Amino acid sequence: MKILLIGGTGTIGSVVANRLKDDYELVIVGHSSGQLQTDITDPNAIESLFKNVGNVDAVVVTSGSAPMKPIDELTNDDFLEGIKSKMMGQINVALTALDYLNEGGSITLTTGILSHDPIPQGSVLSTINNAVNGFVIGSYGEFLQHGIRINAVSPALVEDSAEALGEYFPGHTPAKMEHVVNGYEKSLGTYITGQIIDID
Amino acid sequence: MKILLIGGTGTIGSVVANRLKDDYELVIVGHSSGQLQTDITDPNAIESLFKNVGNVDAVVVTSGSAPMKPIDELTNDDFLEGIKSKMMGQINVALTALDYLNEGGSITLTTGILSHDPIPQGSVLSTINNAVNGFVIGSYGEFLQHGIRINAVSPALVEDSAEALGEYFPGHTPAKMEHVVNGYEKSLGTYITGQIIDID
Repeated sequence: MKILLIGGTGTIGSVVANRLKDDYELVIVGHSSGQLQTDITDPNAIESLFKNVGNVDAVVVTSGSAPMKPIDELTNDDFLEGIKSKMMGQINVALTALDYLNEGGSITLTTGILSHDPIPQGSVLSTINNAVNGFVIGSYGEFLQHGIRINAVSPALVEDSAEALGEYFPGHTPAKMEHVVNGYEKSLGTYITGQIIDID
Repeated sequence: MKILLIGGTGTIGSVVANRLKDDYELVIVGHSSGQLQTDITDPNAIESLFKNVGNVDAVVVTSGSAPMKPIDELTNDDFLEGIKSKMMGQINVALTALDYLNEGGSITLTTGILSHDPIPQGSVLSTINNAVNGFVIGSYGEFLQHGIRINAVSPALVEDSAEALGEYFPGHTPAKMEHVVNGYEKSLGTYITGQIIDID
């Protein structure tokens, strides 16, 4: 099985890559490192990436960010920054993947706990994570008509980010990295679709 | 209580206006009709509207749209159309309202059943409705620090749209308009916040 792993050099993606590398043929894509590079905020760059790689059996995205700010400092532009990256970046990968996935293929996106468990300064991430969850829920039936599954892994604050980001997440218990990777393996290896796989 | 009702001339808004008009001081805003006009896709137009109206006790938004298309025809631009209107239109109203709502004020946005109950061609609306729900869930705690409540009413296919849109919603039982309006009255009249008020 050939897997395109976009964000495979990041905090979550590098751990996913390390687990999957012995059992799958991985194409690891980063923003500035990895085997190939792309900018998921640019729909044309995503199209070029797929043209370059050709058909695959699965696409996993562990890429995308959004700014954190208090509500009284947030502007339309702050939201657009998150929309272009973690929201439309992932959605555009899924839309493009439709033309490059082999029959029975799967798409796995990444959202996060803030969709339903808010923290101060997290409004943009709550919005964007829930948007991507909504895309998975809203589109899985149509992807299925094309023989494609789509799920999102929605991790809690992950262990490997706890030192850097833990102060923003008071009282949150970090998710173990091996549990987070389990979420991606579940999406890849089962027949589930339209699911938000919560990793606590 | 003075209520700014944005979208007060539309299918849902006009019924909301009719119920509330005897008990509240309403400012009814439409796109091309109503007492005042605005374009919620333009953050500057929203700011001008609030400057013009001044302080209010509640803001209700029943405005915003998004395109419906099969997944294999959807583009980044289709999503951006829905993002600008029903998603960021409503979020920008909420962000702006923070400066114009009296202490104890409330914001009520409108999402819809497609956030969790998908239909063919409904991927953009599922995404956008869930994004706005995520904003409400993610931001209510910070709004509360400013003495402001925020909720979303999430109706099923509404009775008054059933003739025009029913064919897109196979097997859906339309929600009675009086039940839909109850959702807005609940948000306005109780102390709840951070809630998605489902109207089935």
